[in-house]
Amino acid sequence: MDLPKKVEIMDVSPRDGLQMLPNFVPTADKVELIERLKNCGFRRIEAVSFVSPKHVPQMADAKEVLKVIGDDPDIDEVGLALNERGLNDAIAAGVNWITYVIAATETMSKKNANTTIVDGVEMCKKAIKLGHENGIKVRGSIAVCWVCPYEGDVPKERVLKITEELAEAGADEIAFNDTVGRAVPNDVYELCKRAKEQFPEYHFAAHFHDTFFTALANIYAAMTAGWDIFDSSVGGLGGCPFSPGASGNVATEKVVWMLHKMGIETGIDYEKLKEMAEFAQQIEKKAKTNIARE
Amino acid sequence: MDLPKKVEIMDVSPRDGLQMLPNFVPTADKVELIERLKNCGFRRIEAVSFVSPKHVPQMADAKEVLKVIGDDPDIDEVGLALNERGLNDAIAAGVNWITYVIAATETMSKKNANTTIVDGVEMCKKAIKLGHENGIKVRGSIAVCWVCPYEGDVPKERVLKITEELAEAGADEIAFNDTVGRAVPNDVYELCKRAKEQFPEYHFAAHFHDTFFTALANIYAAMTAGWDIFDSSVGGLGGCPFSPGASGNVATEKVVWMLHKMGIETGIDYEKLKEMAEFAQQIEKKAKTNIARE
Repeated sequence: MDLPKKVEIMDVSPRDGLQMLPNFVPTADKVELIERLKNCGFRRIEAVSFVSPKHVPQMADAKEVLKVIGDDPDIDEVGLALNERGLNDAIAAGVNWITYVIAATETMSKKNANTTIVDGVEMCKKAIKLGHENGIKVRGSIAVCWVCPYEGDVPKERVLKITEELAEAGADEIAFNDTVGRAVPNDVYELCKRAKEQFPEYHFAAHFHDTFFTALANIYAAMTAGWDIFDSSVGGLGGCPFSPGASGNVATEKVVWMLHKMGIETGIDYEKLKEMAEFAQQIEKKAKTNIARE
Repeated sequence: MDLPKKVEIMDVSPRDGLQMLPNFVPTADKVELIERLKNCGFRRIEAVSFVSPKHVPQMADAKEVLKVIGDDPDIDEVGLALNERGLNDAIAAGVNWITYVIAATETMSKKNANTTIVDGVEMCKKAIKLGHENGIKVRGSIAVCWVCPYEGDVPKERVLKITEELAEAGADEIAFNDTVGRAVPNDVYELCKRAKEQFPEYHFAAHFHDTFFTALANIYAAMTAGWDIFDSSVGGLGGCPFSPGASGNVATEKVVWMLHKMGIETGIDYEKLKEMAEFAQQIEKKAKTNIARE
């Protein structure tokens, strides 16, 4: 069993963790969340997204957040985009990385970005080109790689075809997302293994939600297929909008505990991380409180 | 990846799930828990333990529980024992299976059964012999196979040596227990693989706690090593006495959801199981309420 000796974890709590919270999280809290993540040892943080403030008002202060945290040469600040406007905003804001999100099903492409799979892939290629022209690295991020809440199980061939196109376009990294937390480890292993066999030198990342508690099993399965970059969210922030009440992103502290006990390095200080998980959960709690009732 | 097509799950909630609850669970509730498990499709249920009522008062009605549920030819009722008296009581009570528990570390052997590893193994062999003479199947159940709360990481060679002795003594099944929920999937895979290679025809079971959320990952890892019998507890009943506040046994409904989505048969009705998880959690809640305060 050849497992990686070192794994990179990107914490996505400032973006995926906060985006669905009903009350606006003050910019200062977002900044503190990011600063504390840096202090735990994270070197890549999904800090913001550049999406319509009408649809995701929580991210309306994206530019402000980036301005306040400043340009730390040790840290890659990642901004997410899923259309041309967001892409241009991310470039203008001076992020180091762009996560450009497309989807592996037509329904999700339509719901998420009002586009088609084919047009999504074309826009992602454009994001890679524009990003590189501006000295920015680009992750091609594929939503619903295993299960789509609208279309069910997703054909692996389709995901691999999209992967091929993004790889040929020069994406710095390709992420497979289990957007609704319904992937299971045998399917994860199979898809990850095939992608790795097809592109052995390529950087792949996986993004698992823990809706049905399979995220750690899926991370282990992906590692046995040679994958070594994973997303997670401190404190488990980020309830999945499709499964009310269910947990969302896999909690970073769960991932780090398992990896360290497995003898795999992450560069993260687990004790500091556990401490800040409480801080993150307090932010979430405050932003869930129904202000109208107070 | 050769995964089993079918997996057997033994629900242990009536025993491991209830044993540490501070208030006595009425015999009628215990019986209903077992009846509902049967109705979900379980064919082997860890119903009771025969331990000192002084140390585990919750199991004082073990004989009564077995008497009320009666002798169902379709169901294997399992009774747990960890010393000679318990063994004799289990035989007298007419269970179909005995889980005889020993431990892989001296400290745990001492704490759990006031014995040594060597004497524990000898008693387990006696349990196998006595059980067989009385038409009862015997699982040799080894506590703390990966991590001991008192001694830390447990040498795999020692667990395999105990396994060898129990196998030679004719145990019908050998279980490896992650008693405090600190096992991780690479260690699980390695130990399970070695046991299976050494005894390819043997029946092995694994019992994982979910204290650090690795239980599903560990079950997946064990399955990739060819294991196909797992313990779990509906509703996640059974807080681990060594880790207050942490979750205990892995919840059966989490296991069944994952296995079914993986295309692995269990014989369990998931919808009925989800429904009864709430019933189980109500039993737990009632038995945790501080009566003195009411």
